[in-house]
Amino acid sequence: MSAGTGAERQRGRRPGAPDTRGRILEVARQSFADRGFRSTTMRGVAAEAGVDAALVHHYFGTKDDLFLAALEVPVDPRAVLPAVFAPGVEGAGARLLEAVLGVWDQPEGRRPLVSVLRASLGDAESTLLRDGFLRLVERGLGELLPGPDPRLRAQLVATQMLGLLLARYVLALEPLASLPRSAVVELVGPTVQRYLEAPLDQLG
Amino acid sequence: MSAGTGAERQRGRRPGAPDTRGRILEVARQSFADRGFRSTTMRGVAAEAGVDAALVHHYFGTKDDLFLAALEVPVDPRAVLPAVFAPGVEGAGARLLEAVLGVWDQPEGRRPLVSVLRASLGDAESTLLRDGFLRLVERGLGELLPGPDPRLRAQLVATQMLGLLLARYVLALEPLASLPRSAVVELVGPTVQRYLEAPLDQLG
Repeated sequence: MSAGTGAERQRGRRPGAPDTRGRILEVARQSFADRGFRSTTMRGVAAEAGVDAALVHHYFGTKDDLFLAALEVPVDPRAVLPAVFAPGVEGAGARLLEAVLGVWDQPEGRRPLVSVLRASLGDAESTLLRDGFLRLVERGLGELLPGPDPRLRAQLVATQMLGLLLARYVLALEPLASLPRSAVVELVGPTVQRYLEAPLDQLG
Repeated sequence: MSAGTGAERQRGRRPGAPDTRGRILEVARQSFADRGFRSTTMRGVAAEAGVDAALVHHYFGTKDDLFLAALEVPVDPRAVLPAVFAPGVEGAGARLLEAVLGVWDQPEGRRPLVSVLRASLGDAESTLLRDGFLRLVERGLGELLPGPDPRLRAQLVATQMLGLLLARYVLALEPLASLPRSAVVELVGPTVQRYLEAPLDQLG
């Protein structure tokens, strides 16, 4: 929910080298957009930015950190999910919605996200959304959900969240787009909760 | 669920004028893509195709018919929704999913749809998806659902359907993408059903 990635927050912005940091981000952004998530490497970004790979790691941590920073994703699943599940699975659906919509409801948080979502879906392989972002969500939920099939549960949650973000913020369907966040959480929370904890027996 | 629009089926293809018909469709497709749904007119399409507006109406019926034909949308909400609700609102969520996924599960049905969905979301104003397609869904549900707020219900259904189509067919998330349709209907049906008929009192 914070603007920076974990690694970035820990180390703080390095005021002494704004150009290098910015150049790495710019190169990374371009590489993720052109080559997708998997084919973008820390080493490749470093080479194109004309710096040592160790410096990219130093500034941005892992490739996941670099990805979240380059795309300015303001919701880091690795931080948000543990916070949402800290009080237990009960009510986690509503808390997850509250956390995500809380970011999207702010115009300054929403603008880059709408572009990223559009770009990810326009991307022929959709690798940014799938391999970059949803993989972090699946992994996070896999560690937090007790039962079997955490991956399928994560994907069911993703269907509802993704469609909700598109309808409310990208398509801006009215009245949905103007509903208070609390009303949306009440309406959609039970769906997310069900996907998080209902038995999925029928899948065998 | 058929390949043609209502008007097209009624009148049948006119074997005598394949070029004119094809030219109108091509012009319409381009106009919807360039100008969006609202700014595309039957008159404008006719003028650009070099034919009389009456001929466009003759071939394609209304602007909604022309839209569905030009974008090759194989699910006409005006036909599917009444069929889904004919046995009553009970089970309508599962029947709606079955009908829509039945089309998307066929590779030949899916290919144009994936392109249209990508294009609609990439379109800066998203007018094709919102003003062209979802408007027909909202209107159809408005006539079929008994309670208040049919428009909001239609939009909630749209959030779940849209996200499901994206996750299963565009992002192709596994295991969701390979689940049998019946399993998806069992998992997601209760969500759609709830949006169709649960009380929405909290909205005042």
